[in-house]
Amino acid sequence: MSEAQKNKGTAFRDLHAADGTFVMPNAWNAGSARMLEAAGFPAVGTTSAGIAFCLGLPDYEGALSREAALDETCRIAGAVQIPVSVDAENGYGHAPEEVAETILKVADAGAIGASIEDYSAGFGAGGLYDRHLSVERIEAAVAAAASLSFPFTVTARAECYLAGHPNPFEESMARVVSYRNAGADCLYVPGITDAETIGKLVKEVEAPVNVVMGLAGSPLSVAQLADLGVKRVSIGGSLARATFGVIQRAAEEIRDHGTFSYSDGQVPDAELCRFFADRQESCAP
Amino acid sequence: MSEAQKNKGTAFRDLHAADGTFVMPNAWNAGSARMLEAAGFPAVGTTSAGIAFCLGLPDYEGALSREAALDETCRIAGAVQIPVSVDAENGYGHAPEEVAETILKVADAGAIGASIEDYSAGFGAGGLYDRHLSVERIEAAVAAAASLSFPFTVTARAECYLAGHPNPFEESMARVVSYRNAGADCLYVPGITDAETIGKLVKEVEAPVNVVMGLAGSPLSVAQLADLGVKRVSIGGSLARATFGVIQRAAEEIRDHGTFSYSDGQVPDAELCRFFADRQESCAP
Repeated sequence: MSEAQKNKGTAFRDLHAADGTFVMPNAWNAGSARMLEAAGFPAVGTTSAGIAFCLGLPDYEGALSREAALDETCRIAGAVQIPVSVDAENGYGHAPEEVAETILKVADAGAIGASIEDYSAGFGAGGLYDRHLSVERIEAAVAAAASLSFPFTVTARAECYLAGHPNPFEESMARVVSYRNAGADCLYVPGITDAETIGKLVKEVEAPVNVVMGLAGSPLSVAQLADLGVKRVSIGGSLARATFGVIQRAAEEIRDHGTFSYSDGQVPDAELCRFFADRQESCAP
Repeated sequence: MSEAQKNKGTAFRDLHAADGTFVMPNAWNAGSARMLEAAGFPAVGTTSAGIAFCLGLPDYEGALSREAALDETCRIAGAVQIPVSVDAENGYGHAPEEVAETILKVADAGAIGASIEDYSAGFGAGGLYDRHLSVERIEAAVAAAASLSFPFTVTARAECYLAGHPNPFEESMARVVSYRNAGADCLYVPGITDAETIGKLVKEVEAPVNVVMGLAGSPLSVAQLADLGVKRVSIGGSLARATFGVIQRAAEEIRDHGTFSYSDGQVPDAELCRFFADRQESCAP
């Protein structure tokens, strides 16, 4: 742990304690993280989907290894001065001890926060960990975070909507309240996109809430989310997926028309070289 | 060397021997390579600029290490079934022996071709290696390629235009002819973008020529390049830089307007998951 990491951990915790709303866009490599930092965002998350896709892997549990995710985390955290919070999927293990180990490894990689999901595709019928185990997993993450010598922010995710639970709001509420009571710093229910439900969640959870935007047709603005009391806005893998849209359309243009108009939207080489000048590899490959 | 690599090496050599023109777009990670392959291109190149930018590094010689470039090459070559040719910059060394070693390492990483530049920012006044050393470097690359048990295609680049040589066409011609005579399979003079000069180069070199498109305002189409006798069309780092354009504009949109319309251009998550389904990590991180 460096002094810089301690400062980042404190800054990130302070963002959650302060009034208002902040945007934490999600990066998938050092270059995207640097560009998001330069735009002025106070923190970046990572996106396991974006990291997986760039490695040519699906966003399915088990496709992206913990080792590969941490490798990219290390490069991202080493490339920016702002705090980095890691999309740590299900903690890369079912058992609370495995989740705790992942938190320590995420911290070792230079990040100052992580989100933990309560879902595993390979676990049981619906995929959701039962409430009791889910709470134990968050308790383990919180204990691991508390063992560090700097503030480490734990985000607990309730995946009831994405898992197709029959009563997703009630089940999500029961879960995030218990995760909050277990010490999670921020709560996150992916799959909720309408203002009414977001407002209800924020009101009832009485703790910092993260909402993800950037899904197709994201209807709400940051200002509207702020009005609803949302603390943190992330974008998941949407920006990474937008870059694949560019690749797909450019490939079709070159193949079907033999032209290169996609290149009109590029950042010029000289500008990128200036932008990244004097940076060094932040983690050994 | 696997049977698959031998087949790729043969296929790539055959593309240069066949009539007509082919497009070899440049990838910077496994995901972009897979998407370009899926569009139907018969081969992909790598782009050292794109790889560097994604690592948060400038496209300056020495910023991207050979090790990091080969690491990405291994992932790219392992992710696709089509041949991969590597942008090997100056061969990661001045001495012919270093260039030869790079060729062997590129082959070890799963690629079946590489381009070698005759320029080094840190070398002499203008940066161009003198003609004699440049030819020795290509001879070393060709000898290393010939020592392999499969066809490995060497592309020799003359950097006179980019280096600001006072007589760039004459100097480039003298160089590429001597590289051809030294055994290079494909010749490449970056910086030439007008039809007349391209046509003259192709006519005089009497060997396969690569032309790069995708610079701002690329004026020629693949059909026009084919009419000029160009064998291979690459796109350098232009598509990678276009993805940074998306990131830059999205970051500004979120910051300045609090909206997420950039996400309308994304490839949906489910589509990307299907696209990459059943892929595995192709190189250990």
